[in-house]
Amino acid sequence: MSYVAPVKDMLFLINELAGLAEVNALPGCEDATAETVEAVLEENAKFAGEVVAPLNFPGDQAPSYWKDGEVFTSKGFKEAFKMFGEAGWQGVQHPQEFGGQGLPKLVATPCIEMLNAASISFALCPLLTDGAIEALLTAGSDEQKAIYLENLISGKWTGTMNLTEPQAGSDLAMVRSRAVPQGDGTYKVFGTKIFITYGEHDMAENIVHLVLARTPDAPEGVKGISLFIVPKFLVNADGTLGARNDAHCVSIEHKLGIKASPTAVLQFGDNGGALGTLVGEENRGLEYMFIMMNAARFGVGMQGIGVAERAYQKAVQYAKDRVQSRDLAGSAGPVAIINHPDVRRMLMSMRAQTEGARALAYVAAGISDFAHHHADAAVRKANQAKYEYLVPIVKGWSTEMSLDVTSTGVQVHGGMGFIEETGAAQHYRDAKILTIYEGTTAIQANDLVGRKTSRDGGATAKAFIADMRATEAQLAAIGSVDALAIQRQLTAGTAALEDVVDYVVTNFKQDIKGVFAGSVLYLKLAGIVFGGWQMARTAIIAQQKLDAGEGDAAFLKAKIATARYFADHILSAAQGLRSAIVDGSAGVMALSEDQF
Amino acid sequence: MSYVAPVKDMLFLINELAGLAEVNALPGCEDATAETVEAVLEENAKFAGEVVAPLNFPGDQAPSYWKDGEVFTSKGFKEAFKMFGEAGWQGVQHPQEFGGQGLPKLVATPCIEMLNAASISFALCPLLTDGAIEALLTAGSDEQKAIYLENLISGKWTGTMNLTEPQAGSDLAMVRSRAVPQGDGTYKVFGTKIFITYGEHDMAENIVHLVLARTPDAPEGVKGISLFIVPKFLVNADGTLGARNDAHCVSIEHKLGIKASPTAVLQFGDNGGALGTLVGEENRGLEYMFIMMNAARFGVGMQGIGVAERAYQKAVQYAKDRVQSRDLAGSAGPVAIINHPDVRRMLMSMRAQTEGARALAYVAAGISDFAHHHADAAVRKANQAKYEYLVPIVKGWSTEMSLDVTSTGVQVHGGMGFIEETGAAQHYRDAKILTIYEGTTAIQANDLVGRKTSRDGGATAKAFIADMRATEAQLAAIGSVDALAIQRQLTAGTAALEDVVDYVVTNFKQDIKGVFAGSVLYLKLAGIVFGGWQMARTAIIAQQKLDAGEGDAAFLKAKIATARYFADHILSAAQGLRSAIVDGSAGVMALSEDQF
Repeated sequence: MSYVAPVKDMLFLINELAGLAEVNALPGCEDATAETVEAVLEENAKFAGEVVAPLNFPGDQAPSYWKDGEVFTSKGFKEAFKMFGEAGWQGVQHPQEFGGQGLPKLVATPCIEMLNAASISFALCPLLTDGAIEALLTAGSDEQKAIYLENLISGKWTGTMNLTEPQAGSDLAMVRSRAVPQGDGTYKVFGTKIFITYGEHDMAENIVHLVLARTPDAPEGVKGISLFIVPKFLVNADGTLGARNDAHCVSIEHKLGIKASPTAVLQFGDNGGALGTLVGEENRGLEYMFIMMNAARFGVGMQGIGVAERAYQKAVQYAKDRVQSRDLAGSAGPVAIINHPDVRRMLMSMRAQTEGARALAYVAAGISDFAHHHADAAVRKANQAKYEYLVPIVKGWSTEMSLDVTSTGVQVHGGMGFIEETGAAQHYRDAKILTIYEGTTAIQANDLVGRKTSRDGGATAKAFIADMRATEAQLAAIGSVDALAIQRQLTAGTAALEDVVDYVVTNFKQDIKGVFAGSVLYLKLAGIVFGGWQMARTAIIAQQKLDAGEGDAAFLKAKIATARYFADHILSAAQGLRSAIVDGSAGVMALSEDQF
Repeated sequence: MSYVAPVKDMLFLINELAGLAEVNALPGCEDATAETVEAVLEENAKFAGEVVAPLNFPGDQAPSYWKDGEVFTSKGFKEAFKMFGEAGWQGVQHPQEFGGQGLPKLVATPCIEMLNAASISFALCPLLTDGAIEALLTAGSDEQKAIYLENLISGKWTGTMNLTEPQAGSDLAMVRSRAVPQGDGTYKVFGTKIFITYGEHDMAENIVHLVLARTPDAPEGVKGISLFIVPKFLVNADGTLGARNDAHCVSIEHKLGIKASPTAVLQFGDNGGALGTLVGEENRGLEYMFIMMNAARFGVGMQGIGVAERAYQKAVQYAKDRVQSRDLAGSAGPVAIINHPDVRRMLMSMRAQTEGARALAYVAAGISDFAHHHADAAVRKANQAKYEYLVPIVKGWSTEMSLDVTSTGVQVHGGMGFIEETGAAQHYRDAKILTIYEGTTAIQANDLVGRKTSRDGGATAKAFIADMRATEAQLAAIGSVDALAIQRQLTAGTAALEDVVDYVVTNFKQDIKGVFAGSVLYLKLAGIVFGGWQMARTAIIAQQKLDAGEGDAAFLKAKIATARYFADHILSAAQGLRSAIVDGSAGVMALSEDQF
């Protein structure tokens, strides 16, 4: 059940593919030298592997539980979270001003991956806290920042996001929770929120709920939603904890996976009203919540990559240990199953998809650092557009691929995979939430189609495609068998993506249902093409290093072989997806509701 | 949690696609008139929907359990199984001579689908019993048949298959259980068997274990395995039950899914030896076991179709009930989510794959009836080859697609899907075993590549492809927009399949690992091409009926639209698969074991 973080691959991607040197040169990123980053990753890998990873399976078997309004987390979680906070891991990417390490997203991203590979259930608490920190940094008043940020960044307190209500799932227009101003700057909040991750637990002194609610005269729909801080315990002027607030956990869910993480139903205001303060301005809650959500969406993408890596490592270990059946090419006795071609294919499929998604996510993190820190506003803006285009892809594709990878992980184990004590099944169950929360894959895809593609007439997508063409030319110049095989699939993939971008832009207004019928397929196509592009870039860099006699030859050759596998087996689906999107929209809406 | 069997679709496929009239004309199939078959299906649908389906979710929540060597099944299972036996459902396809109904496989197949849609956990007991009956019918002595068959067919006793041992999973060469002849025609059996479905339970008076073991002088490997009947209770000469045999259940597994079905570890001979009798001849056990396995493999394919249908029905119901977000084309308020294009796409994907797999399986069942009952030996032989080619596809593809369909089913439910009490997650967990037991997908694919394709030089595959080309011509003759769209994808799919068959036949000897690296992809390609072909045939038949003014127009139009969806969205993956198989084998084996 162990996990050894792939620090070598991470550092390769950070340094060679995502351009740590350029990020390190940005104002405010001076601390992120190659040496520091390596040290941070190695320390984080140790913490994730030694402290958190061993809690994952026991936490699944003995999940958190609710009793009389309190939630008791799985054994060891409390102690590990204390260590997590004390070691400063909550603060990696947050400002030094409030006790953080102020490191770029490019450095925080592998740390988030490692924690999630160790345990999604555990990592969810910091993930939600990150979102609360982001929202307060952006929209909080100085007083709110002073009260909350340091305690959140130190891991003394944790944060939550309270969006969903029973009648309103993904549709926030239907939010009904109320916030009544008390005339003294505070509000009394009333309502029921469901699916609140770590909405109640015993790992921190206080829980800072960020809650969407409507003020009495707010307009209908999403333009009438405001954001409030509603702490579990009120905070006195001197920063000490005051009275228990009227925000209570009435139950937690019995879930398919991530069982150690409590998913709470929270009742606000049943005993007179939960006291809260407004974040930013009234009726701008959705905008602020999107800050949290965008951070969280990228983070959920990392969860997909983390659980995929964990499942891959477990499958590799089993395939090396399990001896069964003779080698196809002939052997005296049975061999380890890693020698059987289909087992090998399954492992390569897991490996290639995980590495491809990781490469894309780290590159996106680097782009985000440029968007935040570059001295030139125009460069910031261009990178922000690129980053925002990539977020739904990182979230949607990395999580969808994690379903495939964790399923394949069970399959590698054969019958043993179906037995819970083997542990492979947990990853399969845990991963299933990732395509649902923080916006389902369809919601990511809607974002990709609407705000990220149609709105700018496909300009951002086309800018990426131009860069892909440059990579194709580099592959052609290398001219090896592998490079040419990769180039052929990348060229076909890029062409398919360009067709689909044109299709989306052209038909968005005149055939909106047809375009949205293909939205998830467009997201998947973008995932494999962007992932395949980054894998192609890794192959080029690896070949350059091999030619120069630099680096670890076995590692570099494995990068090329994995990129080749990705091109042949994953990217090769591009044209089928293009055809389903462009030719297949008619069939999606052909039946009437009665015909189902 | 209800299930309403799709009897209308079943009858359409049986009558129009699989040719019930021709099957009914075969010697020994005279009872299977259209009227009788309709009555059988409706009665079976009622039993499955009303008696068995309500047990499925409670059985998952309160699984079978072991206590002091005994296994207690979930509430209601015992009573339902008694009703099942008394109503004659175990005997649908078995000889009237032993109390069965003697109906063709084409009729038994939908019954098996319905029972599995109602509850895989429940249906496993009859499925394994069917296998035991088949083996005894083929290889049992007259005495064995007289003792066991009637009681198995009446549901008074049940059967099991005992293959797997802890050190030997799919590799039966490693079986170590021993059978020592006692000189009186009986044997004493010793050994441990794992993963024995319904190896112990309280639903029947006796359990008839069919056990693979080695006699003292048996050759090594699979050629030294014999098959034994080892009943839980010995049977007296007068047919009454005698002493408890030395075959004991020492534990059952804690599994990801199908929790209501006990999966036993059985210990044979710990107290002196379990008494058994030899089935057929010594050292031919594997051959007999394959009879059971081939029947069971087809049955597991039906499990995939059954659970997919159940998940589809549940998702449709939720999508019609759940109101959220406005219609993209504009609506005053929120609408049922079935109106959202991506929800619609997910439902169509579930529906099309389920219908495609069902169509293929029923056609295969009809072919099996020709192989068994046709008066002309040459026709029997040709159909047997066709049926044997299809078995790994029906098993492998129907179960792989059930993973996708049940996963999509959870996704349609959004956050509610992840909550166990919703019930969608159970299907996702249950389905996961289907690609593993009775031979993993890789083992099905090996069978398809080796025994079913390479051995006859691709002749059977090519015969099917010739029939597909005739369907393409029919589509072209119809000439409608839908027919031409289907034709285009079918033509591309058929070409891809033909390429791959040629590749397999040509390279089987010279590049065995390369060919087997693509074996599962070949199986998946064959699945979508054969499924797409049968969907195309349903579209043609539906169009002919519409043109003739026959039948239910809404139903027939839905068949055409679903076939179109299948072509555009499922069959369109064919060329990518072809490319991965033919171009992608090099990448699969490129890494050394150390590089993982």
